[in-house]
Amino acid sequence: MSVAEKLETGTTDIAATMRGLGINARTAAKALRSAPRKQKDAALLAAAASLRADSNDILEANKLDMDAAEARGLTGAMLDRLKLDDGRIDAIAKGLEAIAELDDPVGSTIAEWDVHSGLHIERRRVPLGVIGIIYESRPNVTADAGALCVKAGNAVILRGGSESFHSSRAIHACLVAGLKAAGLPAEAIQLVPTTDRAAVGEMLKGLDGALDLLVPRGGRSLTERVTTEARVPVLGHLDGLCHVYVDKDADIEMAKQVAVNAKLRRTGICGAAETLLVDEAVAATALPAVAGALKDAGCEIRGDDAAQKLMPGIAAATDDDWSTEYLDAIIAVAVVPGVDGALGHIAKYGSQHTECIITGNEQTANKFLTECDSAILLHNASTQFADGGEFGMGAEIGIATGKLHARGPVGLEQLTTFKYVVRGSGQTRP
Amino acid sequence: MSVAEKLETGTTDIAATMRGLGINARTAAKALRSAPRKQKDAALLAAAASLRADSNDILEANKLDMDAAEARGLTGAMLDRLKLDDGRIDAIAKGLEAIAELDDPVGSTIAEWDVHSGLHIERRRVPLGVIGIIYESRPNVTADAGALCVKAGNAVILRGGSESFHSSRAIHACLVAGLKAAGLPAEAIQLVPTTDRAAVGEMLKGLDGALDLLVPRGGRSLTERVTTEARVPVLGHLDGLCHVYVDKDADIEMAKQVAVNAKLRRTGICGAAETLLVDEAVAATALPAVAGALKDAGCEIRGDDAAQKLMPGIAAATDDDWSTEYLDAIIAVAVVPGVDGALGHIAKYGSQHTECIITGNEQTANKFLTECDSAILLHNASTQFADGGEFGMGAEIGIATGKLHARGPVGLEQLTTFKYVVRGSGQTRP
Repeated sequence: MSVAEKLETGTTDIAATMRGLGINARTAAKALRSAPRKQKDAALLAAAASLRADSNDILEANKLDMDAAEARGLTGAMLDRLKLDDGRIDAIAKGLEAIAELDDPVGSTIAEWDVHSGLHIERRRVPLGVIGIIYESRPNVTADAGALCVKAGNAVILRGGSESFHSSRAIHACLVAGLKAAGLPAEAIQLVPTTDRAAVGEMLKGLDGALDLLVPRGGRSLTERVTTEARVPVLGHLDGLCHVYVDKDADIEMAKQVAVNAKLRRTGICGAAETLLVDEAVAATALPAVAGALKDAGCEIRGDDAAQKLMPGIAAATDDDWSTEYLDAIIAVAVVPGVDGALGHIAKYGSQHTECIITGNEQTANKFLTECDSAILLHNASTQFADGGEFGMGAEIGIATGKLHARGPVGLEQLTTFKYVVRGSGQTRP
Repeated sequence: MSVAEKLETGTTDIAATMRGLGINARTAAKALRSAPRKQKDAALLAAAASLRADSNDILEANKLDMDAAEARGLTGAMLDRLKLDDGRIDAIAKGLEAIAELDDPVGSTIAEWDVHSGLHIERRRVPLGVIGIIYESRPNVTADAGALCVKAGNAVILRGGSESFHSSRAIHACLVAGLKAAGLPAEAIQLVPTTDRAAVGEMLKGLDGALDLLVPRGGRSLTERVTTEARVPVLGHLDGLCHVYVDKDADIEMAKQVAVNAKLRRTGICGAAETLLVDEAVAATALPAVAGALKDAGCEIRGDDAAQKLMPGIAAATDDDWSTEYLDAIIAVAVVPGVDGALGHIAKYGSQHTECIITGNEQTANKFLTECDSAILLHNASTQFADGGEFGMGAEIGIATGKLHARGPVGLEQLTTFKYVVRGSGQTRP
């Protein structure tokens, strides 16, 4: 039996295997820490080439996953997330090439200054070390997450979903081929070689101090488990309960366009709007106009009492609706007393992710942008812009909803830390 | 019975009390978030005045703590940490005034840029929200920590040591007087009104989501408990196992001065050196010179085999010595094969806090500064400079040894987070 087979049949000690991954990762992280940009980029480009060259192997592996998924009765959307074809493999390869093109954040000087003792202090960006990523079915995450971590100078331990186990292994083999071709340690990107859930438990415990950071990428239950149980820092994403507030000074045409885009461009992403708030001062005209545009575009409307009066026939929003992330073509609509009412509603029900105000009044906009305690505040723009790429940060590993370290899009820079480099001439402290 | 008495006698529900503190803190945080600098500074200055005016009350409260501590048989050093007098109260007041003078980090633009969609993106510094601080006997932390959190726009819940309970309450009363005088909510700085350890457990659970951050300030056992059990992010300080490496190209006089200062200026702080590493190429002369200077200054020397040969009569260092934070006038000395040997030793035994290289060779220095994975790396300067004040950051709440969010000194800026403020003109995402 191979190690992988032993692991799959449970004849190997999971804890020991995972500790081994941790030790390998720490060694690889040391090499990655001072690897020059050219070498890291070469690894990513070689991995992209390997993905394209070995696409048949990947498709074969993916067929194993797809057959197993169909046998287990997975639904259409789940199957679609899992499926690979030549076009999707090419897109994964292009993703690696795009990451190679991004600036290397490592080694840059974030700030520097002199202090009274004569010391020169530099705050320099450095890799975090070893990152653990726990994700669900999409096999492309194996490539995206592995590449982002390596480009930021980190070693990474990937734990993919059991549904995509074979696909991820085939993609991982291409990443390893890339690392080897560039002379970087193969252990810079390790894939947990088992689908046993005990492996996740070991990662949550931190692999004997080997993990510097855990990133869960998946649904709420995964992120909640990781956030609750992890003994290492976590950058995760909980709810994206985003609001669009239409102020009395809004341009109604703009409000219609932005609200329809914010809700319906893609309903399944965390930046999709879930609640529409309309200023009572203009609700009589603005609410039917904006909610009507949403309805015409195929969105179900659920309203509070005031909204129901203005749009007879819509369903009633219950208290649950204000705190539900539909991720679907449904929106809850409430009438609020001005910007203070909107801020109050968002503070009570929001998830501090992304909120938008539509108004032509700069003063009202500034109040909203200043007082609202969410990660991303937009004035006159769709909440669907809540995305690392749209922010000009390049590829992202997700959107963090915590307040520490990284808030909002987690790109290359957010996968680094810093250290202080201090130069003196023999100074002693008085 | 007063609430405080009920709490002290355990007749009140601790969990409910702590939840109440959390709710109050969230409300206060909302007011603090947009409080102007002038108002926050006024609160700190009024608190300083109140400390001076009410010094007799504070000394009386302190006497209760001192009497109880003596009755419990606390030792001299512990008693000294607890003791207040007019001079120390004045120093606490001066500390508040110094924090009032620091720049307000809140609201500043960290970065801003335009993206292809026409959106203007600003990364703006904002308060974290509600911070919980758990500390041990020094009563001055009540004032320092409370003031730093408020200046950074946060509400704070302080849980002081039971030994300093009465002193902390008296100091806290002055802080509240300052907040009230400036028109800020008294609940911006709350002191846990009980010495029951169950209160700490509640804080570790996060007070129903009210806490954004926990900062333990105290010995290793406290920090370890908080780091291990907390369900909210923690900025803490574990070991400070700092190294001084004397390279073959070191100026020996400089090495002597820096090593003596690094070890002996104050032995009890986290930036004190614990291990001296000497390049084998110059060990025959450098080791007796540098370790001899330490010995002459009253330091106990424990050496590896090579060091013992060069300095007959010193004690042998066991394997434990390389990983012991003495916090005392003891140093472990090893001979290493050049800068690579030093880096290897530090990677194996260090705590990623602060390390120093003494060398006249820029290339060797750069290698050390680049490859060593510690928070603070110093070239030709004492490790005792590992301090927020010495870094020009003003007062600090401690030194963080984790890699996420804040690394090294935790000052005002590190007690904040940021949000993205995005301005558009009706953009929708394609």
